[in-house]
Amino acid sequence: MNDLRRVVCLSGGVGGARLLHGLARALPADALTVIVNTGDDFRHWGLYIAPDLDTVMYTLSGLGHEARGWGLAEETFGALEMVKRYGGDDWFALGDRDLGTHLVRTEALARGETLSAITARLFERLGVATRVLPMADAPCRTMIDTDSDGTLPFQQWFVRRRAVPAVKRVWFDGTRTPAPGVIEAIEGADLCIIGPSNPYVSVDPILAMDGVRAALERRKVVALSPIVGGRAVKGPLAEMIQTLRGEPASPGAIVRHYEGLLRGIFVEEGDEPSVGASGCAVRGGRTVMTDRAESLRLARELLEFAATIP
Amino acid sequence: MNDLRRVVCLSGGVGGARLLHGLARALPADALTVIVNTGDDFRHWGLYIAPDLDTVMYTLSGLGHEARGWGLAEETFGALEMVKRYGGDDWFALGDRDLGTHLVRTEALARGETLSAITARLFERLGVATRVLPMADAPCRTMIDTDSDGTLPFQQWFVRRRAVPAVKRVWFDGTRTPAPGVIEAIEGADLCIIGPSNPYVSVDPILAMDGVRAALERRKVVALSPIVGGRAVKGPLAEMIQTLRGEPASPGAIVRHYEGLLRGIFVEEGDEPSVGASGCAVRGGRTVMTDRAESLRLARELLEFAATIP
Repeated sequence: MNDLRRVVCLSGGVGGARLLHGLARALPADALTVIVNTGDDFRHWGLYIAPDLDTVMYTLSGLGHEARGWGLAEETFGALEMVKRYGGDDWFALGDRDLGTHLVRTEALARGETLSAITARLFERLGVATRVLPMADAPCRTMIDTDSDGTLPFQQWFVRRRAVPAVKRVWFDGTRTPAPGVIEAIEGADLCIIGPSNPYVSVDPILAMDGVRAALERRKVVALSPIVGGRAVKGPLAEMIQTLRGEPASPGAIVRHYEGLLRGIFVEEGDEPSVGASGCAVRGGRTVMTDRAESLRLARELLEFAATIP
Repeated sequence: MNDLRRVVCLSGGVGGARLLHGLARALPADALTVIVNTGDDFRHWGLYIAPDLDTVMYTLSGLGHEARGWGLAEETFGALEMVKRYGGDDWFALGDRDLGTHLVRTEALARGETLSAITARLFERLGVATRVLPMADAPCRTMIDTDSDGTLPFQQWFVRRRAVPAVKRVWFDGTRTPAPGVIEAIEGADLCIIGPSNPYVSVDPILAMDGVRAALERRKVVALSPIVGGRAVKGPLAEMIQTLRGEPASPGAIVRHYEGLLRGIFVEEGDEPSVGASGCAVRGGRTVMTDRAESLRLARELLEFAATIP
């Protein structure tokens, strides 16, 4: 692993952030660059909310709620309680400490700062040494065409409707211009990792940015499977694979979804056969990260596996 | 007192709100209309903050912090702690529950609702039956010309600089149009009360609205003195009277400040002589409200005193 000087990891929220916490400790401080999905970003209570950036920031800074995987530890919900009293929107639970982040970011955006610049500053203020880039500075919204409820922006579908309406199609509404540094980071990487995030709603938005997929195709790309034993570790991914691909959820379906992009995939022990003869290397192991020690162990095994791939 | 069907009270923050709490219980629910100073309103962390409206709302709803007189009871400061970590402005301490109010109001203003409409809705949601009007819907900012620090907006002078720079002049920057209902409420009032608020920065902004002073001059107006024994119950009023009027702080100085507007003033027992031969009726009593029972007692005594004035 010592020859890995530049690693890029594409990440969504909870699962991706847990792997990042391991990678950040397994690699030298300046080796890792993270590109984070911002397709889930939205405005709520007049504030700009970037759920995946925040989950990554809180996890890497050690301020996050470890067991839950998102939000801050020792959080309170006083503002939400008052908003409810006033009859305001309460379907998205913003914590009080979390509000500090949204207030600072929203005000900085209103002043004309870019999301990348704000992201760099906030991570630095929380003592995170890892370089973290949003996928884009301008908005690009993940939209969900549903069977029963028409088209919903991601958070309306995922949080407000609890991902119940079946998904017919996922598409992206907004910029295709990646944030400064995104393409350069991929082009300069010895290894690109796709975190155990939902391919449709956490990774595809990043791949939809101009030049990202083409740049990845020229690098060594390995993924950590978000599917374990036919089920998603978290979230509605298994149902989405069944509906959108017409096949059962499996690591093999993940490999096929990425259409030749992956040179290797790390899967839960026993899931190896699902990958089949794809030309994609497979390694089995324990993939569910229940605590920070597990994240580090898994990050090391993933990097070791990647080193065996030419 | 039973013939008092329509009472208007002009109010700033803490002291005024305490009297209102008593008046709201001493009078029938539909008898009282409050006109609140909004000259202190400002934007902070991108949010619209209306300190006096909120102090009145929290006090009348019973949700306020009784001993402190402003803010909410059982408040937390998680958002502020995070804003500090990010290096943001921390000179104005917004509590978490309090933030719920600012978020709802700011979003409603951004949608185009008027401050009066939002105020009516929020008070109603908190179960306050008293009718409360902001002095104006558009901004009118109280500005402080200081000896040592140039011109400061009110909160910058009062909170950030702790009211230390000596005041040379107070002026108002913005609208002169009173909110809907303000003039009508005064014109229809049997009695107008000026709360024990700072005349320069809490009452004069209301008097500066077009038609307010002229309408008051045609009504019976009585005040509760904010000066007790030569000192302000709270805040920098005594120093301001000395500097701006060139006389020691006293209820008499308050009467003279309002230039013939007052037909009566209720003062702390022993302070009666300061009023002198002004043509303004004087009643002495205990004027410092230390709890809600005292507010009610004082409100009743004030109403009783007003009833003795023709």
